[in-house]
Amino acid sequence: MSDAFEQALAHARQTEALAQISGRLGWDQQTVMPRGANAQRSEEMAALEAVLHARRTDQRYGEWLDKAAPSDPAHRAMLREMRRDWARNTKVPARLAAELARVTPLSQTAWEEARLAGDVAAFLPWLKQMLGLRREEGHAIADGGDPYDALMQDYEPGTDSDDIAAMFARMRPRLVALREAVLGADTPAPLTGHFAQDGQLRLSRRLAEHMGYDFTRGRIDLAVHPFSSGSGDDVRITTRVAVDDPFNCLYSTLHEVGHAAYEQGVDAAYALTPIGRGVSMGVHESQSRIYENQLGRSRAFTAWLYQAMGQEFGPLSVADADAFYAAVNRVTKGYIRTEADEVQYNLHIMLRFDLERALVRGQLQADDLEEAWNTRFAQDFGYPVDRPADGVLQDVHWAVGLFGYFPTYALGNVYAGCLFAAMQADLPQLQGQLEAGDSSAATGWLRARLQRFGALREPVETITHACGTAPSEEPLLAYLEQKFAALYDL
Amino acid sequence: MSDAFEQALAHARQTEALAQISGRLGWDQQTVMPRGANAQRSEEMAALEAVLHARRTDQRYGEWLDKAAPSDPAHRAMLREMRRDWARNTKVPARLAAELARVTPLSQTAWEEARLAGDVAAFLPWLKQMLGLRREEGHAIADGGDPYDALMQDYEPGTDSDDIAAMFARMRPRLVALREAVLGADTPAPLTGHFAQDGQLRLSRRLAEHMGYDFTRGRIDLAVHPFSSGSGDDVRITTRVAVDDPFNCLYSTLHEVGHAAYEQGVDAAYALTPIGRGVSMGVHESQSRIYENQLGRSRAFTAWLYQAMGQEFGPLSVADADAFYAAVNRVTKGYIRTEADEVQYNLHIMLRFDLERALVRGQLQADDLEEAWNTRFAQDFGYPVDRPADGVLQDVHWAVGLFGYFPTYALGNVYAGCLFAAMQADLPQLQGQLEAGDSSAATGWLRARLQRFGALREPVETITHACGTAPSEEPLLAYLEQKFAALYDL
Repeated sequence: MSDAFEQALAHARQTEALAQISGRLGWDQQTVMPRGANAQRSEEMAALEAVLHARRTDQRYGEWLDKAAPSDPAHRAMLREMRRDWARNTKVPARLAAELARVTPLSQTAWEEARLAGDVAAFLPWLKQMLGLRREEGHAIADGGDPYDALMQDYEPGTDSDDIAAMFARMRPRLVALREAVLGADTPAPLTGHFAQDGQLRLSRRLAEHMGYDFTRGRIDLAVHPFSSGSGDDVRITTRVAVDDPFNCLYSTLHEVGHAAYEQGVDAAYALTPIGRGVSMGVHESQSRIYENQLGRSRAFTAWLYQAMGQEFGPLSVADADAFYAAVNRVTKGYIRTEADEVQYNLHIMLRFDLERALVRGQLQADDLEEAWNTRFAQDFGYPVDRPADGVLQDVHWAVGLFGYFPTYALGNVYAGCLFAAMQADLPQLQGQLEAGDSSAATGWLRARLQRFGALREPVETITHACGTAPSEEPLLAYLEQKFAALYDL
Repeated sequence: MSDAFEQALAHARQTEALAQISGRLGWDQQTVMPRGANAQRSEEMAALEAVLHARRTDQRYGEWLDKAAPSDPAHRAMLREMRRDWARNTKVPARLAAELARVTPLSQTAWEEARLAGDVAAFLPWLKQMLGLRREEGHAIADGGDPYDALMQDYEPGTDSDDIAAMFARMRPRLVALREAVLGADTPAPLTGHFAQDGQLRLSRRLAEHMGYDFTRGRIDLAVHPFSSGSGDDVRITTRVAVDDPFNCLYSTLHEVGHAAYEQGVDAAYALTPIGRGVSMGVHESQSRIYENQLGRSRAFTAWLYQAMGQEFGPLSVADADAFYAAVNRVTKGYIRTEADEVQYNLHIMLRFDLERALVRGQLQADDLEEAWNTRFAQDFGYPVDRPADGVLQDVHWAVGLFGYFPTYALGNVYAGCLFAAMQADLPQLQGQLEAGDSSAATGWLRARLQRFGALREPVETITHACGTAPSEEPLLAYLEQKFAALYDL
């Protein structure tokens, strides 16, 4: 190990330790912080962000990175991550970073109010401002390249938006066709009833344990929006409860357990290093999605869950485990991405991807966004958007400048499809194990094949290494077509 | 405002914001942190401490402080605090600060084990090491002066240990005499029964509200050791519950509410500045003690509490409000400082003060500490120490190097005595208000006279300003002699 590499790594470790603190404060703010502490917390967070920014753009750090020449593969991966971050962070002018930090919370508040009021016009000035700032940032990072692709690298290093567009173009007709077929068939009965909060939270803990979440290195709390935060030995998740909709709580928990399992599963030797965390948003989402969907919404797992819910809540409104499985996977017409089923979810993403890419590239103006959204929604879903809160105002992402983030959700689904196909080939007993309430083989496979490596390999190589083949959308589409054909007698 | 002062203050504000984060992590660690996160948290805290240390000893900060010449009184007080901290922090060699940070948690663990095992010899090497490091630090800060006095300045700026020793010498015979008289009289019956945790916590919240604790800027949680943490708009307290001893929970809560009220009560204009917090440990303790004792253990307040406990827990084991008041103020033989009543508490402090001052001055050797403790305890309390956990091993303070801290507990009691005398003179209706469950006049008086000023004035001036006269031990002694003479028919 060269001295310069050691110095750079020590610097990065300390920065990462401080970044973990920042994450913990985010958890605190959304779970336990007294509401009157908001303004003071902003000042505390700003002080910490200033420290982080100074460390990430420290000139000496850049010099160490220049001179570093490690030979060990893990160290080379760490250097790759450190150099990428350094290059990105030093390209953004301090003035722009400060302006983004200042405007983002104001824009978020404006979006919250505009969404409640259904007032797109009130949000437009903020959208334009955030779009302008992020376009400027994209151009600064892109060095003459495409600003949208540049922004995407923050979430999914190594991606090319043309590749994504081509993949989405292959997926879209098959998903539209599947959706139409499913919605043309009889809709199964939903699960109805009153499900007390205590029982939902108890069952959430059982689900998390079932899926291998390590409570000695994490905890579950309530929050308005479920999330997972932290890396290594302190990975906390949150969930939420609606007493008439237990699947909201239970599948939010499974989703966040997937994210958390990835962070908890990274090799302890990488802790607080630049590879001691999930490698990208897309790979992260592959973990949350495979826990939530391919495992959690499987016939086998829902058979176990049907029993567990009966124990917790008494007799259910559905007749048997088959009806329960159908209720879990019920497909209905809707508007909201976060409530979408496996069939429709990716259509929501494709719509956003096309629109946000056009916005960042200057091919679509913010003033025309609502009309573009509504037109495209009617094309893909077959009915008009009823109100802005169900349309262009439904997601927080653009309000806080997350242009380039949406495609990682669909990439995660695609990756989950690949991983699940490989897992099934390796684990012929999987269905029986899940039905018996034993997920250890599945979660063990994910840990051994993917989670423990953290960011050792680039995202696509991470999936390729785990599956033995390069990622493709085909396994996901085949899985969806097969699952829903069986469920809906297509 | 001079430019140099503005720059220094901006630097100090940002440092204080980061220090608040450090405090919040301490809260997290003792309330909600997963136990497996300990090692990672140490690394996170070390990274933050390194940032804090670098900022506190930053050469540019020192230059701004040298040049600053503000005219506004609040700004002059801020400069006083900043200059004191800067001088202190730059006198301690980095090597010594790092060694103290490294050894302290190890020494604490060794103390915990030695205390459980009753093994003084096992703790002695750690005591010697911590004592050696802190003596070195004391000499470094003292510039040729007394090292114990130098260490005391961290907790109680402006104190002289000879003055403290002289005051304790005046207090000790009267307290020993009062203690003997009380223990010679009939002991009242204790409150007995089973008091469910939920009820104790509900009542704790009522007590905290009763005493003006602002839950929009704070919260109460459970922890092994009750504490208060944070300043300004995020001041959290913890309590603990023993189902057979409700006073433990209720009076711990009142104590911490006193600390928290001080921090919550500081003028919002001083937030995150060097005067935006309690001025010293002694003045802080005056607030916790006056809430807990002079107010909380008064005949009037206990009359209200007797009703409130009856509502929460049903009929109590004591006959009436008088018997309840006697049970709250019951004086019995014991060994443990933290469980001591108002009569005996200060005797515990005086013992520790004399011993720790002799240790730091090199007049007492660590090897001779246990014998010195046991001899002095027998003198003041009239019976021998039964085991090390009840004697020299009972407190964590010396294990973590807090030499010079103990006297601030007694100073707090003395200051509380002064404040209560002045409050009673100003508020003739106080007893009736407390009995009716209305503490607003008392807490309003403390806020207006003391809390809102934060560290605007030095500790003694803070008390003098609030009371209209300089502090003295006389009001506390008179209060104790009068209260316990009445309670015990002396």
